[in-house]
Amino acid sequence: MVNTQKFISQAIEDIRTAAGNEKVVMALSGGVDSSVCAVLAARAIGDRLIPIYIDTGLMRKGETERIKTLFGDIHLLIVEAGDEFLGALKGVTDPEAKRKVIGERFIRCFEREARKPGATCLLQGTIYPDRIESEGGIKSHHNVGGMPLHMEFTKVIEPLRDLYKDEVREVAGALGMPKEIQHRMPFPGPGLAVRIIGEVTPEKVAVIREANWIAESELVEQYHPWQCFAALLGLGTGVKGDNRIHGWIVAIRAVNSRDGMTADPLNIPFDELTRIGSRITSEIPSVSRVVYDITAKPPATIEYE
Amino acid sequence: MVNTQKFISQAIEDIRTAAGNEKVVMALSGGVDSSVCAVLAARAIGDRLIPIYIDTGLMRKGETERIKTLFGDIHLLIVEAGDEFLGALKGVTDPEAKRKVIGERFIRCFEREARKPGATCLLQGTIYPDRIESEGGIKSHHNVGGMPLHMEFTKVIEPLRDLYKDEVREVAGALGMPKEIQHRMPFPGPGLAVRIIGEVTPEKVAVIREANWIAESELVEQYHPWQCFAALLGLGTGVKGDNRIHGWIVAIRAVNSRDGMTADPLNIPFDELTRIGSRITSEIPSVSRVVYDITAKPPATIEYE
Repeated sequence: MVNTQKFISQAIEDIRTAAGNEKVVMALSGGVDSSVCAVLAARAIGDRLIPIYIDTGLMRKGETERIKTLFGDIHLLIVEAGDEFLGALKGVTDPEAKRKVIGERFIRCFEREARKPGATCLLQGTIYPDRIESEGGIKSHHNVGGMPLHMEFTKVIEPLRDLYKDEVREVAGALGMPKEIQHRMPFPGPGLAVRIIGEVTPEKVAVIREANWIAESELVEQYHPWQCFAALLGLGTGVKGDNRIHGWIVAIRAVNSRDGMTADPLNIPFDELTRIGSRITSEIPSVSRVVYDITAKPPATIEYE
Repeated sequence: MVNTQKFISQAIEDIRTAAGNEKVVMALSGGVDSSVCAVLAARAIGDRLIPIYIDTGLMRKGETERIKTLFGDIHLLIVEAGDEFLGALKGVTDPEAKRKVIGERFIRCFEREARKPGATCLLQGTIYPDRIESEGGIKSHHNVGGMPLHMEFTKVIEPLRDLYKDEVREVAGALGMPKEIQHRMPFPGPGLAVRIIGEVTPEKVAVIREANWIAESELVEQYHPWQCFAALLGLGTGVKGDNRIHGWIVAIRAVNSRDGMTADPLNIPFDELTRIGSRITSEIPSVSRVVYDITAKPPATIEYE
């Protein structure tokens, strides 16, 4: 991307041309990619843009409230679908099957809502590494589920399709978007589900949502990682008082990366790590063990499933 | 323990008195406790001691060969029971159930072998913290399975019952035992099974045996931890070349402790940790992710199940 301002004018122009006089729907997750898309499209076509935010029940703590505040001036459709997603995930343990269930459920919710305003164009926040990784089969879920929509759109518009993540952040800055969005870490489409090994249950989601909140509070502003989060690995033994208990094992993951295609674990001082671990086990009594992920991508992915 | 030499003479004398003219059996694991017991008893009653080593298929890499070499001069009964244990563990996922299966299988093997020589006394390497933790229900498996034997013994002899681990190590030194045994890390009765979350399969055992071997080779001589090992947490996603794979998640645990009742994670330089992690993922291709345990005991236990 040679020139950010030039990219912005061109993207707005392209969206305007592609949309014509039609209505455009998009799935807004609140991440930097879809947020930048939404702002570009709002500038291009104003109220003919209809962003849809689906609360899957697998979002981070406070995420839905944050979205409402941030996009207060754009007409935003908020869909509360937590029970629907968690119900569909019951008993599903295979990582690919989980992603598929979430993707399909997402498509169904999105289609249901997208039909209402009679939109014919679909806007997507796909960026360059997404396209590359989809081709290699590394990620099966992107943006709108990574699956074919059953409804027909005249046009699919992907204004960021040739950009790397850091370029999207530059665009966000140039658009005058809040720093909080500009520097927002990537968050996976299937949400907290890919940070839970095995079956997704309401209890596990509650535990990992809280642990993730603690990890982000401790690490984001201090270390500015490309991405950091907590994941739930399973049950192990612990000891409370004189008694043996079974408690959750939580992993903390914090990495640096340029584009998400490769990544290195962050070197956090050991005393800090153990302090954060202690905070997690003491604030979430059902967690008895915390580990720190020391693996690069490759051979690990950044996320856990 | 006021005086090590005095303790040794007294223990030998006590074993001799307790055994009378009878034969004595014991389960020899190769850890410092049972090894010290065996040496004390061999000095007390010579060939009337019959140590039984059961290879459960859940031992560390090279362990059975090591035992044969170390106790070459004591008449040692070696029982190869790997298939029996792994068969019994098939489909068992609950940590307590796993320990129970192993404990019961151990008892059955031990009884079967112990009956042959017609022994009436049982020697056990129980130490003081074992007794305390058994009372609190923190460990359910100790020495001979932590379960009642069906065979009747006239006497149960526990020469180390009032000693802490560091005192046992002193005794080992005073007995002139190899440094390798003297400083030997504790290894749990149920073996590698408590280092595998969920079902124990031959594949998982093979993976964790190799990872544990690497962790020990890298950490024992360099850092002299109270205990260090690798554990298998489950499957997560990884990436090899351009493709998404599912690989094992391995945890490295290294702690300092005085007596095993409390413990602190070892502060290992980050570069060292990531190097060891890389060694594990490159030498064991089915492992895609390595984490480092940063939790004290309490709230975690040292082992994982």
